[in-house]
Amino acid sequence: MNIGEIPTPAAVVDAAALTRNLHTMAQRLPGLSLRPHVKAHKCTALAARQADLGHHAFTCATPREVVGMIEAGVGTDLLLANAVLDVDRLTRVAQAANSADVIARVAVDSSETIEAAQRAGIRDVIIDVDVGMPRCGVAPVHAGQLAETARQRGLTVSGVMGYEGHLQMVSDRKEAQERVAAAMAMLRAAHDDVGGEIVSTGGTGTHDLHQIGLEHPTGVTDVQAGSYVMVDTQYASLHQGFEQALTIVGTVIAHHENRYVTDVGLKALGMDHGDPLIGDCKVWFCSDEHTTFSSHTRTFTLGERVHIRPAHIDPTIARHEELWIVEDGEVVDRWPIDLRHW
Amino acid sequence: MNIGEIPTPAAVVDAAALTRNLHTMAQRLPGLSLRPHVKAHKCTALAARQADLGHHAFTCATPREVVGMIEAGVGTDLLLANAVLDVDRLTRVAQAANSADVIARVAVDSSETIEAAQRAGIRDVIIDVDVGMPRCGVAPVHAGQLAETARQRGLTVSGVMGYEGHLQMVSDRKEAQERVAAAMAMLRAAHDDVGGEIVSTGGTGTHDLHQIGLEHPTGVTDVQAGSYVMVDTQYASLHQGFEQALTIVGTVIAHHENRYVTDVGLKALGMDHGDPLIGDCKVWFCSDEHTTFSSHTRTFTLGERVHIRPAHIDPTIARHEELWIVEDGEVVDRWPIDLRHW
Repeated sequence: MNIGEIPTPAAVVDAAALTRNLHTMAQRLPGLSLRPHVKAHKCTALAARQADLGHHAFTCATPREVVGMIEAGVGTDLLLANAVLDVDRLTRVAQAANSADVIARVAVDSSETIEAAQRAGIRDVIIDVDVGMPRCGVAPVHAGQLAETARQRGLTVSGVMGYEGHLQMVSDRKEAQERVAAAMAMLRAAHDDVGGEIVSTGGTGTHDLHQIGLEHPTGVTDVQAGSYVMVDTQYASLHQGFEQALTIVGTVIAHHENRYVTDVGLKALGMDHGDPLIGDCKVWFCSDEHTTFSSHTRTFTLGERVHIRPAHIDPTIARHEELWIVEDGEVVDRWPIDLRHW
Repeated sequence: MNIGEIPTPAAVVDAAALTRNLHTMAQRLPGLSLRPHVKAHKCTALAARQADLGHHAFTCATPREVVGMIEAGVGTDLLLANAVLDVDRLTRVAQAANSADVIARVAVDSSETIEAAQRAGIRDVIIDVDVGMPRCGVAPVHAGQLAETARQRGLTVSGVMGYEGHLQMVSDRKEAQERVAAAMAMLRAAHDDVGGEIVSTGGTGTHDLHQIGLEHPTGVTDVQAGSYVMVDTQYASLHQGFEQALTIVGTVIAHHENRYVTDVGLKALGMDHGDPLIGDCKVWFCSDEHTTFSSHTRTFTLGERVHIRPAHIDPTIARHEELWIVEDGEVVDRWPIDLRHW
């Protein structure tokens, strides 16, 4: 089957670009120094490729991602990097981890999340620390006290995490480095009070600022990068040496006057970072099942396939059922996006 | 099960509000004068409620929606209001329609879409006419010629459609009425050249401008409204007498300093119309699995449920697997969102 025969809209992966991205990152952050975030692709087949390259610790955003990874037999050390109060779902995480002999660590940032983890039979927790992005995460000054609460409840506290999400897109690398260093000073201070072997943080946008061998290492044990695997138009703007490996492929279904219409719309795209890109075309607007666009440089024929580059990868992939893996224009594999929903 | 026991994030429907919306519209546009658009909810159980009120003609946006409706036995006259070149999918539409004795009409706007329909065994087509929104749809002046092409290929041409999507959100009703009238004059002119019994158009935002009994009727036979069923924050701003029946329910999972975090994020919401609303709270930002917010008027406790009103209903619902139907705080039913994907 060639790329022109895939029913559209379809999430299509350039296998060669994917492989290069995976190898580039594995070289920069080998083995356990990378804790790939599966939320970026929600695909156990892709996570297995990351494990093949030596990454056996993973980050997950939902209980379903953790349970799915365990069921697929990918990863030996899984961090649920989210505040979860749903005891039923956490119980499924604990049971799956116990039966598979996998470490499932759960982030906690309150006595309530600690209680939920303990009731669910979770054994390991990590203190989620606020390092400047206003989301989950306890203030650094309270981290030690929270670790104490967790230990009193019989839980193992294996360290801290603190996602500097607000610094992922700082394009001036000197400024980024300074601000990441300041954020990591907060995380290390919390870690001094918490203890444990893990100091986990980071994302694709800051992965190079935590690298082992830097003049001023940030003291982080592992980086939770996910988007490097596929890259979107936003991450591409950072020029970090990764390629856009995923496009949403659409069919040109209409051509009237100077406009074209493709069958990729809001239901096939994550739109929170704005409109997608189609080559050097002008994207007019997206609606539920369409994107209208035009081009000054070329013409399209009806039925032709177009590659659409989403602005934000994670919520885009979560809209699709499978990844079509393509090599030299031929479909070589299909991977279910099996970790969707909650 | 009460609403506080639903695992979150969840798409929750207020059954009473839904019923009132359905009845309000059925009174305004009874029976076949409404051709409800299933793309707004993608749920055959909900479509069955619309059919119970007398609407047996439906509008669909994808082949999967048409086939799913036929398999569920809902509707007797289905319009695929989209330009489709995928002969395999159209063949499944034709086969399902033939075996169930349902009329499946397919919109066409080019000789290529006509050819695809004919090759697939589709019998009825409708000429999709551009009435001012730059998407699919042939220029009115070419509509008659296209109908002739279709008839030469042995297809029945049952009329025209022309969606005035660009006029759905014109809040000044006098201006809206004038512009809709102008758009419908274009559609009627095309219909004069095309023939056939159907002149289909419209949406929730303009449904009241096509009503039978108006001083200046637009000559439309049926209105393709969908969003009236649930309404989103955008449609609510038109004050058309429909209620927001759907909310995405989340759990408050974190509270630090003056901010709260809920477990409803980009992967549970359609974001193209902007951030969702949470009561009178200030929504700070949405990320993949979270929304951070604050309130000057009240406090929340961890574990508490919050109702989040999405800005755009259609791409929001397409992110969920089921609708939880709630009456007086109790879950009375669960409806699969079974028409998702393509």
